[in-house]
Amino acid sequence: MKFTVVHTESSARAGVLETDHGVIETPIFMPVGTQGTVKAVEQRELKEMGAQIILGNTYHLYLRPGTDVLTAMGGLHRFMNWDRPLLTDSGGYQVFSLSDFRKISHDGVTFKSHLDGSSHFFTPASVVGIQRAIGSDIMMVLDECPPFPCDETYALESNGMTVRWAKECRTAWRGSEPLYGHHQSLFAIVQGSVFRHIRTDSAKALTDLDFEGYAVGGLAVGEPAETMYDITEHTVGHLPKEKPRYLMGVGTPENLLESVERGIDMFDCVMPTRNGRNGMLFTRNGRINIRNAQWKSDDRPIDDGFASYTNTNFSRGYLRHLFQVDEILGLQLASIHNLSFYLWLMREARTNIIAGTFASWKRETLERMAPRT
Amino acid sequence: MKFTVVHTESSARAGVLETDHGVIETPIFMPVGTQGTVKAVEQRELKEMGAQIILGNTYHLYLRPGTDVLTAMGGLHRFMNWDRPLLTDSGGYQVFSLSDFRKISHDGVTFKSHLDGSSHFFTPASVVGIQRAIGSDIMMVLDECPPFPCDETYALESNGMTVRWAKECRTAWRGSEPLYGHHQSLFAIVQGSVFRHIRTDSAKALTDLDFEGYAVGGLAVGEPAETMYDITEHTVGHLPKEKPRYLMGVGTPENLLESVERGIDMFDCVMPTRNGRNGMLFTRNGRINIRNAQWKSDDRPIDDGFASYTNTNFSRGYLRHLFQVDEILGLQLASIHNLSFYLWLMREARTNIIAGTFASWKRETLERMAPRT
Repeated sequence: MKFTVVHTESSARAGVLETDHGVIETPIFMPVGTQGTVKAVEQRELKEMGAQIILGNTYHLYLRPGTDVLTAMGGLHRFMNWDRPLLTDSGGYQVFSLSDFRKISHDGVTFKSHLDGSSHFFTPASVVGIQRAIGSDIMMVLDECPPFPCDETYALESNGMTVRWAKECRTAWRGSEPLYGHHQSLFAIVQGSVFRHIRTDSAKALTDLDFEGYAVGGLAVGEPAETMYDITEHTVGHLPKEKPRYLMGVGTPENLLESVERGIDMFDCVMPTRNGRNGMLFTRNGRINIRNAQWKSDDRPIDDGFASYTNTNFSRGYLRHLFQVDEILGLQLASIHNLSFYLWLMREARTNIIAGTFASWKRETLERMAPRT
Repeated sequence: MKFTVVHTESSARAGVLETDHGVIETPIFMPVGTQGTVKAVEQRELKEMGAQIILGNTYHLYLRPGTDVLTAMGGLHRFMNWDRPLLTDSGGYQVFSLSDFRKISHDGVTFKSHLDGSSHFFTPASVVGIQRAIGSDIMMVLDECPPFPCDETYALESNGMTVRWAKECRTAWRGSEPLYGHHQSLFAIVQGSVFRHIRTDSAKALTDLDFEGYAVGGLAVGEPAETMYDITEHTVGHLPKEKPRYLMGVGTPENLLESVERGIDMFDCVMPTRNGRNGMLFTRNGRINIRNAQWKSDDRPIDDGFASYTNTNFSRGYLRHLFQVDEILGLQLASIHNLSFYLWLMREARTNIIAGTFASWKRETLERMAPRT
């Protein structure tokens, strides 16, 4: 894997991340395909909207279909027929958020499946092994994502464990080979809750271990947006300039632009798809609730400012009808729309960074998107 | 509208039905788009799989989005962005199958909405008016579809009313103009349950009224398949050769081939989409339940005998996974697969009628599809 920063404007960066499954132009939004599918969106539609990389989730894919099926089918790329890059979260977040029961020990975490209560044990080495079976281009280390708020002692101890687990993941990664012939990178995850000195220590310790990329984890878990921006900016300041930076699980269009400005290269979030399935659509002029009666005879597209299958072909009135009558096509068109918006937004950000106009473009874009009062 | 029989093999016919929204090559299967969308399938995907005409439903579209919205949006073609032919069922079937309460009078039927219990009144003239607002290329008369079994007296009286309503629909159709500039045909519906003499009388009376096409209704409501074939064959014998014949709500692939052999030109059925959403997939070698564990690591397509987005891109193992984890993409790919199969089957039937090989092709196709014992 090779990462090149091709342009900067203040802290914002335009980069190119080269993988064996193709090139990713950053800043990039990565659609979330937890269970080997981006919900309600077809693989060819992801390509059509310009998705360059999508996510899978180690916890979910480990439980279903399981590593035996994934290995037999030649890995997740082949299983889901996706020939562009894949990133997999390690499953740490899901162990802590979904499982009814989990117990952390020195070696790893025991948890019960949210599906059937069966017991499982994840270690730093085992999650690397699972991600080898998945075949993701970018693997993530096993980490603990502390809740917010979190007391300082807990955050410190938790981060100590996350750093130790990162080291063990790295050892397992170096000691194992890809199963499907393409290189698999391993990214570390900086934790430390909202405590700057823990974030500093975490970033330094992980940087010393020399990973191929670095994620900022443990944000967007309930803290104020300003805190998120502050901790992001602080953490980025302690990460190597020449490596990609990934802000996990973030966020709104506003969050993305603020974080790009602070030097983040990669994002993932369920918001465009999940909110889309609830009828909340993003536009350049802010969010709309497509269920609202005001749209029922509105012949205009959701947003004529960027191309998508939804915008080019369907009206607000039709989408409103689909949501009113609970039709699956509504979920499809809303998901396509919102993901297209996110991908368009990051392409525009990149174009403006390269042109040196990011700061003014960002200000105008945020003003335009802001709710009218 | 113009219908031409271009070839026959015994009673089976290959025809061309010309409408203002394009040509329909018969025999044809018409995907069901009850509420202005074929469930889980995009309009461009319907074109991709070769759908030449789809259905809408008067009862459902009248309730939601309502004729006011449909009229404001320029009719259903424009509302749902479908520029090929549309056929709308009159809503009679839904009034009798969905409504908690209905009361038939001389003039029409009073019913309560299955959505909110509100009262509504359909007359022969009003359903023509609603279908004018929808703008369907082929409108259906208001009819009563008797249940099976049904006593002869009821069937006789019900059919008498259906014929009278057909006449009133025809008067309303002749006395009204299309709203959107394209011609709208009106098809009659032959009823009479399983009683040959009532079917004969119904077909004769409706033929005397000279409709642009004729449907055989009231079948596939629980009677044995042999009875359905027998009544279809009998009814077709009393319909004019130069008009299209539509067997409503039928059926399995086997039902379609048997009915094509008996002279039917048009079909609709929810089976490919509804069964698809339940994981039942049609193939040239019979049906499979894609949830079955036997498919979990099966890398083969569902059926490599015909092209579809599903067959060309995804394996049985991947589809099985999508159904196991309740992902919407599973519903999409299964619906695309089954509709593609039905459309392919009717194209093959047509090709074989034209080649004069329908009888032998049909026999081989049914043998291949039959469940193994």
